[in-house]
Amino acid sequence: MLKAGVFGATGYTGFELIKLLLNHPAAEALFATSESYAGSSLADVYPAGPDLPLIRSEDAPLDQVDVVFLSLPHGAAAPAAVAALATGARVVDLSADFRLRDAAAYAQWYGLEHPAPDLLAEAVYGLAELAREDLPAARLVANPGCYPTSILLPLQPLLAAGLCAPDRPIIADSKSGVSGAGRAPKQHTHFVEVANNVSPYAIGRAHRHLPEMEQAIAWWSDPPPALVFSPHLVPVPRGILSTIYVPLANASRAQHEADLRGLYEEAYAAAPFVRLLQPGQLASLAHANYTNRCVFSLTMAAETLIITSAIDNLLKGAAGQAVQNMNLMFGLEETTGLVYTPYLTGRA
Amino acid sequence: MLKAGVFGATGYTGFELIKLLLNHPAAEALFATSESYAGSSLADVYPAGPDLPLIRSEDAPLDQVDVVFLSLPHGAAAPAAVAALATGARVVDLSADFRLRDAAAYAQWYGLEHPAPDLLAEAVYGLAELAREDLPAARLVANPGCYPTSILLPLQPLLAAGLCAPDRPIIADSKSGVSGAGRAPKQHTHFVEVANNVSPYAIGRAHRHLPEMEQAIAWWSDPPPALVFSPHLVPVPRGILSTIYVPLANASRAQHEADLRGLYEEAYAAAPFVRLLQPGQLASLAHANYTNRCVFSLTMAAETLIITSAIDNLLKGAAGQAVQNMNLMFGLEETTGLVYTPYLTGRA
Amino acid sequence: MLKAGVFGATGYTGFELIKLLLNHPAAEALFATSESYAGSSLADVYPAGPDLPLIRSEDAPLDQVDVVFLSLPHGAAAPAAVAALATGARVVDLSADFRLRDAAAYAQWYGLEHPAPDLLAEAVYGLAELAREDLPAARLVANPGCYPTSILLPLQPLLAAGLCAPDRPIIADSKSGVSGAGRAPKQHTHFVEVANNVSPYAIGRAHRHLPEMEQAIAWWSDPPPALVFSPHLVPVPRGILSTIYVPLANASRAQHEADLRGLYEEAYAAAPFVRLLQPGQLASLAHANYTNRCVFSLTMAAETLIITSAIDNLLKGAAGQAVQNMNLMFGLEETTGLVYTPYLTGRA
Amino acid sequence: MLKAGVFGATGYTGFELIKLLLNHPAAEALFATSESYAGSSLADVYPAGPDLPLIRSEDAPLDQVDVVFLSLPHGAAAPAAVAALATGARVVDLSADFRLRDAAAYAQWYGLEHPAPDLLAEAVYGLAELAREDLPAARLVANPGCYPTSILLPLQPLLAAGLCAPDRPIIADSKSGVSGAGRAPKQHTHFVEVANNVSPYAIGRAHRHLPEMEQAIAWWSDPPPALVFSPHLVPVPRGILSTIYVPLANASRAQHEADLRGLYEEAYAAAPFVRLLQPGQLASLAHANYTNRCVFSLTMAAETLIITSAIDNLLKGAAGQAVQNMNLMFGLEETTGLVYTPYLTGRA
Repeated sequence: MLKAGVFGATGYTGFELIKLLLNHPAAEALFATSESYAGSSLADVYPAGPDLPLIRSEDAPLDQVDVVFLSLPHGAAAPAAVAALATGARVVDLSADFRLRDAAAYAQWYGLEHPAPDLLAEAVYGLAELAREDLPAARLVANPGCYPTSILLPLQPLLAAGLCAPDRPIIADSKSGVSGAGRAPKQHTHFVEVANNVSPYAIGRAHRHLPEMEQAIAWWSDPPPALVFSPHLVPVPRGILSTIYVPLANASRAQHEADLRGLYEEAYAAAPFVRLLQPGQLASLAHANYTNRCVFSLTMAAETLIITSAIDNLLKGAAGQAVQNMNLMFGLEETTGLVYTPYLTGRA
Repeated sequence: MLKAGVFGATGYTGFELIKLLLNHPAAEALFATSESYAGSSLADVYPAGPDLPLIRSEDAPLDQVDVVFLSLPHGAAAPAAVAALATGARVVDLSADFRLRDAAAYAQWYGLEHPAPDLLAEAVYGLAELAREDLPAARLVANPGCYPTSILLPLQPLLAAGLCAPDRPIIADSKSGVSGAGRAPKQHTHFVEVANNVSPYAIGRAHRHLPEMEQAIAWWSDPPPALVFSPHLVPVPRGILSTIYVPLANASRAQHEADLRGLYEEAYAAAPFVRLLQPGQLASLAHANYTNRCVFSLTMAAETLIITSAIDNLLKGAAGQAVQNMNLMFGLEETTGLVYTPYLTGRA
Repeated sequence: MLKAGVFGATGYTGFELIKLLLNHPAAEALFATSESYAGSSLADVYPAGPDLPLIRSEDAPLDQVDVVFLSLPHGAAAPAAVAALATGARVVDLSADFRLRDAAAYAQWYGLEHPAPDLLAEAVYGLAELAREDLPAARLVANPGCYPTSILLPLQPLLAAGLCAPDRPIIADSKSGVSGAGRAPKQHTHFVEVANNVSPYAIGRAHRHLPEMEQAIAWWSDPPPALVFSPHLVPVPRGILSTIYVPLANASRAQHEADLRGLYEEAYAAAPFVRLLQPGQLASLAHANYTNRCVFSLTMAAETLIITSAIDNLLKGAAGQAVQNMNLMFGLEETTGLVYTPYLTGRA
Repeated sequence: MLKAGVFGATGYTGFELIKLLLNHPAAEALFATSESYAGSSLADVYPAGPDLPLIRSEDAPLDQVDVVFLSLPHGAAAPAAVAALATGARVVDLSADFRLRDAAAYAQWYGLEHPAPDLLAEAVYGLAELAREDLPAARLVANPGCYPTSILLPLQPLLAAGLCAPDRPIIADSKSGVSGAGRAPKQHTHFVEVANNVSPYAIGRAHRHLPEMEQAIAWWSDPPPALVFSPHLVPVPRGILSTIYVPLANASRAQHEADLRGLYEEAYAAAPFVRLLQPGQLASLAHANYTNRCVFSLTMAAETLIITSAIDNLLKGAAGQAVQNMNLMFGLEETTGLVYTPYLTGRA
């Protein structure tokens, strides 16, 4: 039985982690921290939550756990990672602290000096399907952002095969549920502001998930196409739907949709959480919410490949992928604790 | 491994049943019927549903199953029950066909002659916590209505103890999610009609769940107090919150809330799915949704006991309680397949 | 043209007031204050708002206005009222500061000494339909709370006619939209907490609107029946639906619903904003939202009269009634600026 | 006073028309038709609707009206237009029947022979801001589709100025409220299917509004760039947000956002319902809902101009623009009956 610790257990992703661990047959949560609620129980924060005591970070028994999950704000996660690694625990960081390999880019996008630049080189970017070889030996895993997970998984096979036009931007138009904005109440997450509304924000090249995606695109494609990213807030609690427009390279414009399907089927043949829909189907939040899946579809139009890609931002986009990474780090079956349960396929 | 069959698998409650059975360690769905979708798969109906073939009722291999769940319209369930019982299968009926013991009352409230009046006497009213002794021998279980489940569970201990004023009506003001109205699209379940609205309907003494509740109240209390029942449609997909106002009998008006709590703690000491909240807490949908629990609270005001009672209408109010009944019928642990899973306590 | 000033224009009720005044043919907003946004424009706060400059309270030109609306927190409104009255302006206070006539009750329920107890005696309780005679001479009007407006309007004729059982509590079970909780973001108004949920709060005898309603009940009925009040938060931006259960007095139990209808038709014959629905109809938020109406229905059950009563909490429950009061104070037609406009009857 | 008739008054757009006409100072609804509800009142269909009698189409007194609005299904509108024109009435058709000038294209996209091909040549495409010169003499106006209105208004100045790359597709990713799908209940408009979901449909080049937009693009640009159009259903009752990605032509790539702003300011200087947001602002549904405005913003990224464009689909996207067209047809001020009212800028 793996012993796990969760830092920041009262946020939306932290709480998902706790629930996944409670249900995991080969891992358990040994402790859960919260600065604001230390001394009370998780059941005091979430009406249907388990009666799990919350402790302060500084009281966490790091030496008793095999793995630590960090659901902390950026800037706070890196020091916690340093402390955990020092005790021999392995770390899955759900913050942005180890996603960018370049400390200067981190400073530019996050507005602070990186707290642990020496660890950047060894951090594995935990887009699980594409990091499978590196995870068994990883001490430190940077869990990807939610938007990047929904966008990079369907883009990687195209980029690696050289099918994207290098001189035209890929456009990713994402629609996100409100839990992605965190649990702390803000004006723009007030029910009255969100209900009946759809709001774009940080569109174009302004969102912090942009450099994270550009970094990955450059790994897979040289020269890398530009990326235009437009997130929108929609009145749903959870889920991300990314509609991605990919201009195809000259050589590939004549390709049939069927060929593209073959490419994906090969790339993700061994990926239990990646699901390519049948021709004519389109991905919606209902395809992915309450599951750890990334579900996507392909449609050709005007020499552009349109991908609709859906994930549950709290599962495949955060806590689910973190547990998937833990499974792969420790040699467990990838799907352990993430398999079919009623509400991993629930709707309604 | 229990073999189960599900009639009417594409409605909201039928689909919940399928998901619960897929996740159940000691039972499995051997077949699933649908008149409208026979020949296709459940995955064609629900985007995240399993790839389960749908067959016509008449093709159901009744002789191969131990238990049959009927998620059929009233009037259609009774004949299916007769057929299933004839093959030796036991039956959990989620329709209204066997809830009222009186065929005349059935005819009055449902507008048709009862299709199988001979079976009424043996049908067990499956409010699981109160039917535990009868379930092991039951061939036919009438799964209670969703509203009655939320209202009767917290009322029974009071009625049995004679604490309710006999001459004043109990008032149950219920707020229900839209899945309770079924999956067939109607004008009043159109998104634009439901969103931003709250609508009472069939209030007073007009709803079909009223005689079902009055029947139970008369079992437990003589003379039985009257019941005023006011259902409301609220813009949520699932969940029922019943706010119940109980005028206390003279003798009990002086009772302290603490005494009442003791009464409940004793009545439900062995009930894993009944949860009485701490003083000062009030039940909300978030306490019960995605679980098989009935969660309630007690508040005293003006010699009236106010109970807030929450259930998930599709689980404890339908499919969850049906599986709980199956567990008890077949000698399984009551909570099997209904225990803690991430989304049995999910929120967000 | 009446000159009006609005204190606290950036809250939800303040913004409604501004919109009503902009559309009012006989009044105009001369100034609008906001402590947080002074120096910017109302269009910076509300995307579709008018380009109206926001000033600090202390800079408000009180001597240039005929009437002042106070959309301020309780405790802050009373001093502003004193200042406005001193310049000769008349005041409609939308806070709770002048609703309770008893300074001791105010201190008990609001936790602070009343800032201007000398004004309590002259303040007119502005439930407009029932204050019509006092309003023309009023200097200071206490605009009622939103819940009390929805509950007292349909109760008053019954109480005045002695039809309510004096020894049994009236029960008011109210469902409110989230704008009633104000614009400042709080944990319980976060979209993710509200969506898919229904939450009771302060039920029984704990809400601050209770003493306000008890005070009015005692004006109209001696001895006054007790009131049990249970507010619930529902996932809609605006509107209140109150389902009210009235035990009828012995003498009136034999009364027919038709007689009761006659009572109401007489009581509100001259009230343009009160609408009694036809037998068989029930009030929903869709009947009242975006209007200044109070719409209600009558249903008899078990010697209990069930009233469903709907208002728009921001209009008839706040800004609309405030303008209605202004109209009556200044001798204008009651409906001026509140008549039929597309979105005074809008739906969808 | 203009006399107007409304065909199809009980659909969502028909009801908006009725409300606008009731509030219009220079026009009135003389009759309203409904096949399903003939004989009853509009108040029976909409809880807050006016008490307006509904008649059958065949009983409409066409000879008594100056103008007729057709809120009918495609195929049914054209014959009604023929009948109305024959009596001398002018026609604003809100269906698709006269939007495409090519009867063959109509047959291909709508699956039926055009019922009145002789009228196609004279029909004016009523994108009001761009049809101002033709409207005064128009007998027959084809009111544009909701999606095209949100997309074409911000595209036209760019296309007319030759700023769009001719060889790269313009991409329009639209998010629409559910009222756009009509009032008749369907599975995909059931509350439980829509809530918590975001669903793309008919993406790429499959939606019937595509040829309508391509036709207009070809009017303004030669050669015309291709258009990729991706509509999505979002859980809001009303509003459309279109996020439009325009690859700029070589010659214009160096253009500053400021130059582009100048282009728009000039193009729409005299357009009271077109509003270009300030740099840094992005359009949301809250900017446009309950108004007749089209509100948009400009953002440059990777040589792509990103436009966010918001309209209320029932107003500027249907009934509001129809009234705007009527105003221009009859020489009234363009904004008559569409000006600022509380709920033309409402939020909450």
